[in-house]
Amino acid sequence: MEKIKGSPRKGVDLRPDPSVLFQAVRKGKMIIVLKPAATKKDADEIIARIAALGLKPLYMPGTERTVLGAIGDERVIAGLHLESHPLVEKITPILTPYKMVSRDLHPEDTIVRIGDVEVGGKRITIIAGPCAVESREQMEETARAVKEAGAHGLRGGAFKPRSSPYSFQGLGMRGLKILKEVGEATGLAVVTEVLEAGDVPAVEGLADALQVGARNMQNFRLLTRLGRSRKPVILKRGMAATVEDLLLAAEYIVTEGNPNVILCERGIRTFETATRNTLDLNAVPYLKQKSHLPVMVDPSHGTGVRDLVAPMAKAALACGADGLLIEVHRNPKEALSDGQQSLYPHQFMKLMKELRPLVRALGREM
Amino acid sequence: MEKIKGSPRKGVDLRPDPSVLFQAVRKGKMIIVLKPAATKKDADEIIARIAALGLKPLYMPGTERTVLGAIGDERVIAGLHLESHPLVEKITPILTPYKMVSRDLHPEDTIVRIGDVEVGGKRITIIAGPCAVESREQMEETARAVKEAGAHGLRGGAFKPRSSPYSFQGLGMRGLKILKEVGEATGLAVVTEVLEAGDVPAVEGLADALQVGARNMQNFRLLTRLGRSRKPVILKRGMAATVEDLLLAAEYIVTEGNPNVILCERGIRTFETATRNTLDLNAVPYLKQKSHLPVMVDPSHGTGVRDLVAPMAKAALACGADGLLIEVHRNPKEALSDGQQSLYPHQFMKLMKELRPLVRALGREM
Amino acid sequence: MEKIKGSPRKGVDLRPDPSVLFQAVRKGKMIIVLKPAATKKDADEIIARIAALGLKPLYMPGTERTVLGAIGDERVIAGLHLESHPLVEKITPILTPYKMVSRDLHPEDTIVRIGDVEVGGKRITIIAGPCAVESREQMEETARAVKEAGAHGLRGGAFKPRSSPYSFQGLGMRGLKILKEVGEATGLAVVTEVLEAGDVPAVEGLADALQVGARNMQNFRLLTRLGRSRKPVILKRGMAATVEDLLLAAEYIVTEGNPNVILCERGIRTFETATRNTLDLNAVPYLKQKSHLPVMVDPSHGTGVRDLVAPMAKAALACGADGLLIEVHRNPKEALSDGQQSLYPHQFMKLMKELRPLVRALGREM
Amino acid sequence: MEKIKGSPRKGVDLRPDPSVLFQAVRKGKMIIVLKPAATKKDADEIIARIAALGLKPLYMPGTERTVLGAIGDERVIAGLHLESHPLVEKITPILTPYKMVSRDLHPEDTIVRIGDVEVGGKRITIIAGPCAVESREQMEETARAVKEAGAHGLRGGAFKPRSSPYSFQGLGMRGLKILKEVGEATGLAVVTEVLEAGDVPAVEGLADALQVGARNMQNFRLLTRLGRSRKPVILKRGMAATVEDLLLAAEYIVTEGNPNVILCERGIRTFETATRNTLDLNAVPYLKQKSHLPVMVDPSHGTGVRDLVAPMAKAALACGADGLLIEVHRNPKEALSDGQQSLYPHQFMKLMKELRPLVRALGREM
Repeated sequence: MEKIKGSPRKGVDLRPDPSVLFQAVRKGKMIIVLKPAATKKDADEIIARIAALGLKPLYMPGTERTVLGAIGDERVIAGLHLESHPLVEKITPILTPYKMVSRDLHPEDTIVRIGDVEVGGKRITIIAGPCAVESREQMEETARAVKEAGAHGLRGGAFKPRSSPYSFQGLGMRGLKILKEVGEATGLAVVTEVLEAGDVPAVEGLADALQVGARNMQNFRLLTRLGRSRKPVILKRGMAATVEDLLLAAEYIVTEGNPNVILCERGIRTFETATRNTLDLNAVPYLKQKSHLPVMVDPSHGTGVRDLVAPMAKAALACGADGLLIEVHRNPKEALSDGQQSLYPHQFMKLMKELRPLVRALGREM
Repeated sequence: MEKIKGSPRKGVDLRPDPSVLFQAVRKGKMIIVLKPAATKKDADEIIARIAALGLKPLYMPGTERTVLGAIGDERVIAGLHLESHPLVEKITPILTPYKMVSRDLHPEDTIVRIGDVEVGGKRITIIAGPCAVESREQMEETARAVKEAGAHGLRGGAFKPRSSPYSFQGLGMRGLKILKEVGEATGLAVVTEVLEAGDVPAVEGLADALQVGARNMQNFRLLTRLGRSRKPVILKRGMAATVEDLLLAAEYIVTEGNPNVILCERGIRTFETATRNTLDLNAVPYLKQKSHLPVMVDPSHGTGVRDLVAPMAKAALACGADGLLIEVHRNPKEALSDGQQSLYPHQFMKLMKELRPLVRALGREM
Repeated sequence: MEKIKGSPRKGVDLRPDPSVLFQAVRKGKMIIVLKPAATKKDADEIIARIAALGLKPLYMPGTERTVLGAIGDERVIAGLHLESHPLVEKITPILTPYKMVSRDLHPEDTIVRIGDVEVGGKRITIIAGPCAVESREQMEETARAVKEAGAHGLRGGAFKPRSSPYSFQGLGMRGLKILKEVGEATGLAVVTEVLEAGDVPAVEGLADALQVGARNMQNFRLLTRLGRSRKPVILKRGMAATVEDLLLAAEYIVTEGNPNVILCERGIRTFETATRNTLDLNAVPYLKQKSHLPVMVDPSHGTGVRDLVAPMAKAALACGADGLLIEVHRNPKEALSDGQQSLYPHQFMKLMKELRPLVRALGREM
Repeated sequence: MEKIKGSPRKGVDLRPDPSVLFQAVRKGKMIIVLKPAATKKDADEIIARIAALGLKPLYMPGTERTVLGAIGDERVIAGLHLESHPLVEKITPILTPYKMVSRDLHPEDTIVRIGDVEVGGKRITIIAGPCAVESREQMEETARAVKEAGAHGLRGGAFKPRSSPYSFQGLGMRGLKILKEVGEATGLAVVTEVLEAGDVPAVEGLADALQVGARNMQNFRLLTRLGRSRKPVILKRGMAATVEDLLLAAEYIVTEGNPNVILCERGIRTFETATRNTLDLNAVPYLKQKSHLPVMVDPSHGTGVRDLVAPMAKAALACGADGLLIEVHRNPKEALSDGQQSLYPHQFMKLMKELRPLVRALGREM
């Protein structure tokens, strides 16, 4: 509970020195379009406010609308708060909203290690397993199958966020221990979801990577707490989150001191109902171009339909994803959650065989 | 941390007896459409599975597709898990996904008390104040203004969830204490946002109602914890949440034992960018018809544009909302967050004057 | 077929003189953000290109990104085509994309006459009737009912655009004649949909106003042809159209010479499936503030659910709509299309009674 | 104008015999959920209505809600119109809304010929060229470049649908003639957009395939007219169209007698603004599984960003697309429309080289 006393960022501070953080990005600009009703006097008043903060003002009068500019330290610009001025029609900040995760600041690809597995760079990483840990037998059988097919990691949820309070909510800590033991027995790195900041200490000891689910992408307490962990974080895009929102959520983790973040596209909510979500693969090359972080794709949640998982897994790699999260269940007919989007072990085996020539044709390795 | 040991629902159990819960809704039906490839034998196998659970099976053969049905206890039906069967094309459950919050179960309007203020029934309730608590002076000045204009409650955020880690994050506990003291001084009930389950004990002692923000609508740990509180909860709809998702989130709180839930429409995310969100007022009469809980509307977040707040506040009441949450700041030009959607005190005063004849014309009271 | 020979705008030119058109809006600005890779030489080259067109260039260098500006005649600016330049990261035009329909250009409300009925100004106009003309008896009975309840106009589709080729497609010209005769007999102005440019001559002789359906909002041939008509046009917003798209579609009609355009919000397509569409009432005050054209709302299509029509009709008026389009059928159970969103005559009568005190409370007349 | 006299389907009837059309799909079912308020008498009344039409009624009473069914000829079921009944809560039709385009009816892949080029089957087809025909020189230069890189067809718009009346609207018939002559000179099949039914006769003589743009996907007059043409049609998905809407639009063309339809995914409109549209690649395997028609993808409009075109072109093929529509301009900096999403000729050449090993790895040919 220390977090709610005073600053939300208290405790041992693992964050990078802010002077380093802002080193390459210290200057910004803001363009301010005034409403037609703004007079020369109004413009002068705003110019004075800009200048008073030590920023360089710009004045661009017009027959219809006057446009102003402010140039200088972008933290100062962010403090102008002109968006709420009654005579301001529109603000266009020429800033980079995210910094630490931006490729502008860090041009080389970041490679994140989950256990012994590298994510990013030339290699393609496949993490497979059931939606939820249901029993030791289910996990052992599924883990053996995905290992044999060539998967690098094992997924399985112990704490399940479910839309309805009447749905299966996961086995909790017992499920987590099963996951860890099965991972050790098979030599697969294990990935599981963490639901809130308070759970991080317990979960980080039992998993090789921590997943933030779509519904928690903007749980800023959880992000901040994960920023103080050293475990890699797989950050899933929220159902209504823009790619910029996703990068800002990653920024929360990285600015706290944990650079091991993997972004994950898993489908957004649109008007289309033939599929559970709309997998936004445009986001993959976009994120790879704007950020140095690795990008994975979850075609199981991204489609919600078993027969669409394999084609969308291929598409994800073709547009540049560094890896895949795929739901596999030993018997989807009996799955307690998400059975309709889980592959049968033989389907996963077939998919892995089909991915190999594709990965080579793309000039990558698996 | 007790929550992650074993069941997520442990502790003193305040939930209603399940036999009461399911009393009026114990029977359901499920319609199962088979794929064209399904044979008579496949159908018989599924029928046997339905019958084995004590449900009544139905068989509707066809030239192209066979349709099956299952009638019986809806908790048993929910355990059929046929959605993942490879020969099942589509499942249509004829169930009520939410129960405790449904008007089917509880036909009369629920009235929730925030401090001395009633929400629901014939009265219209207005809660106003700044997005964030910034200082004692700001709160005092704003509180006096909204009180004078006729508001019933005071809002103000102490813990602010912000998309960017570089934005103002709120004053924390210090802000909360300011809010409480200003509320007491002016006689206004106070409402503030709570960000995670662990914060509930500290926050519930200082506020008359706890708000769950849009980004936390599916933070099920928080919902479950609020279900064990006795404080009223204002539950804001998530940006990508359907009205059914919202009712299910409310169900999490009510099934834990706290019946004091107010639903709040605050805009959803759509392709339209002229406004910050798309205020979905269709949701208001829909929620009032399906549920007995009170419904409020937040036209400030729902539009994101100061000049649209007053017309949308009127529209919200006209379609049946029980109250409004409105952002008012003593000087929006200097607001640390959301200034562009905050009303000036004189604008709020004018709006309150315009609402009075409207409320009378609608046959309600304020 | 003359339209496809040469210019799509040939024929008798009813458009206003362009010098008048652009009189008040001749100056614009464009802000051009260069990519980090752009050198001083690249910036100079673009500056030269801006200057060569007679525009005033602006140069704002920075440590990370250079920003350029261009000031001058906005038609010239629109011809810069810098959005496709490989070193340009982002373009922000400070232009008004629409002109003739903008309140900047024409501050007073436009009042459009449909037959003897005025739309816009202080009065509220109600147009009611079935989705489709099905028979003379159906139209007569429905027209008498809506007239008695106080409606000002009668709607009815003769040519129906339907998603499926197997659905009822309307009675065609026969339906149109029924509509006209029933309108004359009851003294109600009649409104009907026109599907393509070639149909305008036949339809404009038989109706008092022509409706452009949501699916045709960007049928630019139809819009251009309606711009040469003198009949008022009710332009419905497309399901994926922004409010700016809607204003630009209206601009097509008005620039061709027909100023009699009524904008109509009828719901957009979002992820919400509880209602047929999401009625975007934010659009109503937004459109009223940006444009001088009247705005109507169609709560029948905007909800798709009979029980939501009355509350949303009230909400539409409360946020500033100038009128309503409401589907009423003498017996919705037997309607050949959209029966589930049609009011029964007695429900429409009740709604009209409830609207009267509301209209007075809003300071308007009906 | 014959179309608006009487039936919209008059003239020489090229449609297949309806008895053939419905041969394999003649039986359907409908599930009708009654509201809790419905009595046994209400249910009996509806059952009588079902039986009166010669359908087999089903009766499934329950403690809370009664469910009815209707089995029989699906055209008769479609005529029940129970969706508008006041005591009906929900209707679930177990019908196939589209028939002629369904793989249920026609399991083999359809191969469509555009000039000498086959689309569908094992081959991958690439159609490239500028957004709009701007001049003979521009088309000749671009055509030579895309031909040399290995494209099979040439695209170019002569009639451009543009959101603003102030944007370039295309060269019209002059542009079409340039396109045809350049196609003949280079031996490339040519594809161009047709805007309305009345233009079809003129355009079909000059192009090898006719494209229906996203804004016209539900211009049912145009679809019906193209159904009477013998030229192949590339049908682009509308910005707010579901995949089912797209299949129903194709059904309009095929039921009129033209089986040569190619479906095209080109991005839908969502809340994401980093890209112009959200390319919904889920739709590709979905459409291939549900329909026998070929599917192409337009990654240029689907992203709106030049740097994203190549990765998304690869993704489209990886998930099963039969071909690509790609915008290439000899000098995108000077393009009159959509320059920011057009590839430079050398970029297109590079993409084609990268596609070849990918196509082989996917087991297809190019």
